[in-house]
Amino acid sequence: MAFRYPNGKKYVNNTQNTPKKRSQNISYSNRGMSLEKDLNETNEYYRSRGVAVIHKKPTPLQIVDVDYPRRSAAVVTEAYFKKPSTTDYNGVYRGYHIDFEAKETKNKQSFPLKNFHEHQIEHMQRVLQQGGIAFAILRFTAVDETYFLSAEHLCSFYMHRQNERKSIPKSEIEEKGHLIPVGLHPRINYLKILDQIISNE
Amino acid sequence: MAFRYPNGKKYVNNTQNTPKKRSQNISYSNRGMSLEKDLNETNEYYRSRGVAVIHKKPTPLQIVDVDYPRRSAAVVTEAYFKKPSTTDYNGVYRGYHIDFEAKETKNKQSFPLKNFHEHQIEHMQRVLQQGGIAFAILRFTAVDETYFLSAEHLCSFYMHRQNERKSIPKSEIEEKGHLIPVGLHPRINYLKILDQIISNE
Repeated sequence: MAFRYPNGKKYVNNTQNTPKKRSQNISYSNRGMSLEKDLNETNEYYRSRGVAVIHKKPTPLQIVDVDYPRRSAAVVTEAYFKKPSTTDYNGVYRGYHIDFEAKETKNKQSFPLKNFHEHQIEHMQRVLQQGGIAFAILRFTAVDETYFLSAEHLCSFYMHRQNERKSIPKSEIEEKGHLIPVGLHPRINYLKILDQIISNE
Repeated sequence: MAFRYPNGKKYVNNTQNTPKKRSQNISYSNRGMSLEKDLNETNEYYRSRGVAVIHKKPTPLQIVDVDYPRRSAAVVTEAYFKKPSTTDYNGVYRGYHIDFEAKETKNKQSFPLKNFHEHQIEHMQRVLQQGGIAFAILRFTAVDETYFLSAEHLCSFYMHRQNERKSIPKSEIEEKGHLIPVGLHPRINYLKILDQIISNE
């Protein structure tokens, strides 16, 4: 189940419960879900083996109204999606603070920068200033390629290219980033890439 | 505005928008809000001065239904509160991963351990294992005293005392923890306490 955010971004409900189908205009496309699902499984793998403690943050909602049925759980009956002010994923690995955003595109030749909010870029820069590790995980769904791109490179692209082209050419992501091999367990072993980067520093 | 979680915990809507008052059984008590508000202001102070990047995570909700009015923003019309599986606050400070939970009690002599979920305690232990810094900020509202208690002590209390007394005596928090002086800017300078702990190690 996928539906649109006010900003055009898809919200994807990837829980086990089957949602009731009352709403209109719902797209049942599964697109946009697979990267998040892969990362959730990867993070669960890391946690269960004591490799790292990294979680996806809950979707930020502005809660306006809540009902209390007599014999059942409280129900939020009115809430609105808010723009996230931070990245979606963070946690700790080998003493390092880890902070990242994950995005996919159907584009084949470039990654649109509109996928990132300005607040998220600012957040990544603040994290770097505090000595944390920040990056993006970018997937080109058409070719099923997933890249690790450091926040240093992402922020540099964002700052210098936003007015010109509003996207990062795939060739530059291939050059500055790192292709993450897709596996079974874990699906997207991004910490292996991080290990290589840390050991090369 | 404050209302009850299914688990008895209060949900506090601390946003600028005034919520519509349609729900029943709402308690308008402001209790339970002040510590969160103080911490949000403190974290905003830290961020604005480049001291640290620490955020409160959004309230975890299970979204079940969303409506799309034609000319306005998407509205979540059915959602349920979920138990948090992590602590509420995390971020990065001087290269350290910071992870903490904040709770208040009206009790005068002890802090009830039922305020902490088992998942949160396990999460703190995992964070410690990864070399992160984890702690609790505990407020006794009756005397307006706020303490910094390391996760090492909190987890030890939780593991050994849960079946016996299900609370931590205030005297032990005074002994093992650190009283945080309440100021104006920032309101709760918990990183100052952390600095002292780090420099004493």
